[in-house]
Amino acid sequence: MNKSVEIGHHTSQQYNHELEDVRNLLLQMGGLVESQLAKALKALLEHDSELGEEVAFSDYKVNQLEVEIDEQCARIIARRQPAASDLRLLLSIIKSITDLERIGDEAEKIARHAIRTNDLNSGKLNASLRHLGDHVREILRESLDAMARMDSPQALRVARSDSQIDQEFDLLSRQLLTHMMEDPRTIQDSLNVTWCARSLERIGDHCKNICEYVIYFVEGKDIRHINLSRQAGKEIAASQTAPETVPQRLPAGLDPDPDSIQS
Amino acid sequence: MNKSVEIGHHTSQQYNHELEDVRNLLLQMGGLVESQLAKALKALLEHDSELGEEVAFSDYKVNQLEVEIDEQCARIIARRQPAASDLRLLLSIIKSITDLERIGDEAEKIARHAIRTNDLNSGKLNASLRHLGDHVREILRESLDAMARMDSPQALRVARSDSQIDQEFDLLSRQLLTHMMEDPRTIQDSLNVTWCARSLERIGDHCKNICEYVIYFVEGKDIRHINLSRQAGKEIAASQTAPETVPQRLPAGLDPDPDSIQS
Repeated sequence: MNKSVEIGHHTSQQYNHELEDVRNLLLQMGGLVESQLAKALKALLEHDSELGEEVAFSDYKVNQLEVEIDEQCARIIARRQPAASDLRLLLSIIKSITDLERIGDEAEKIARHAIRTNDLNSGKLNASLRHLGDHVREILRESLDAMARMDSPQALRVARSDSQIDQEFDLLSRQLLTHMMEDPRTIQDSLNVTWCARSLERIGDHCKNICEYVIYFVEGKDIRHINLSRQAGKEIAASQTAPETVPQRLPAGLDPDPDSIQS
Repeated sequence: MNKSVEIGHHTSQQYNHELEDVRNLLLQMGGLVESQLAKALKALLEHDSELGEEVAFSDYKVNQLEVEIDEQCARIIARRQPAASDLRLLLSIIKSITDLERIGDEAEKIARHAIRTNDLNSGKLNASLRHLGDHVREILRESLDAMARMDSPQALRVARSDSQIDQEFDLLSRQLLTHMMEDPRTIQDSLNVTWCARSLERIGDHCKNICEYVIYFVEGKDIRHINLSRQAGKEIAASQTAPETVPQRLPAGLDPDPDSIQS
């Protein structure tokens, strides 16, 4: 069972609406990025340069959403002076949209390669790239889903599975190297595929970051840069079984300074 | 003349210290990242795998600083409920450290390549890589300098010069491609150099992001995703000549909600 995300608990209806709005914009941005990635991969694998161009020229929409969400978050912090979980929510959103925007950038890069890459000339390479692409799309969908539901156990699962993406990327890199050495005429196209694979691997990294922000919001724990160890999983699992004991709290030291409380 | 950065203007000495502390940590993180990059490049160009290992195993220090700064910023926002320029400062720092941390990651990647790469076997490639590396180090130093002095005209200059890095990267990529096609036995090493060049190009992108956050803080303008046009330059130049007309203000809409002012 997940901790509830208490948006809509303020006595000010206006404040509730503001938080809901910014969260909806975040989900909208996530949906847009997901669709950009799906189209970019389709363009690459089906040699559809027109679709590639469509993706490349739509990236500005992702960027607009990033700036809009950033401004709304800053405005809410300035006006509402949120404490505890609301502040964590807003800071998580501010961090997450940077990663979403960069996923959009990577999708654009894949789309630009789709515009120039000819046939991959190798069914095996094509299949490996499709496999990696499908896996990364799945990870992105699960990350967005964890974010939408602020589901920290799912976020932890997804964050941990990023290492599989890295392994698949390494495998594909080795295949590409062999391909290039066997037939140096394929170097240019193989390099294009290599860049696309690298973009996919980076999207996996950004998904992991987003999941870590979800965990920071829900658990009040910053798990970046620590191994996603069993211990982290145990702690999150333990907190899920006793949701009533977990108030909307800030991590140690994030409580308001008694000297500055203005109520 | 630059707008002054009014840290230290609060009646609460403790609050002033908190802002100074977080800014000092930010500069410390910048210095560490700069040194990591310099060492990683030295390790790569001088085939010093021991130095490469030193860099790779020091990345945790950058990560620790990121988490520490993030926590301090969140704590200050929660306790002090900063308005206007203080909030912009804190949000700029929160964004900048993500880029600094990723510059650290790229330096680590270069260091790891330094551990595995043999001789580049080409003086020309080596020279191009050194040139790109020197240029990126310069851009990083100028970005950190703009950040330390919160100097928006310099930040704009640096952000604009990122396109030169992109051009140098393209040139080096073409050289590498020719090198690989001429002698397929060099493919593996050339790919390693390609990855390092790509890391340098990305560091340039992160520097540009940091400069944009400096401009956001000083000018209250979000210039991401708009071309760094002459207009942006003119506006910044105009604001520099009339510093007395620029109060420590938030952009339109960021003023506190009259309903929620608690004083």
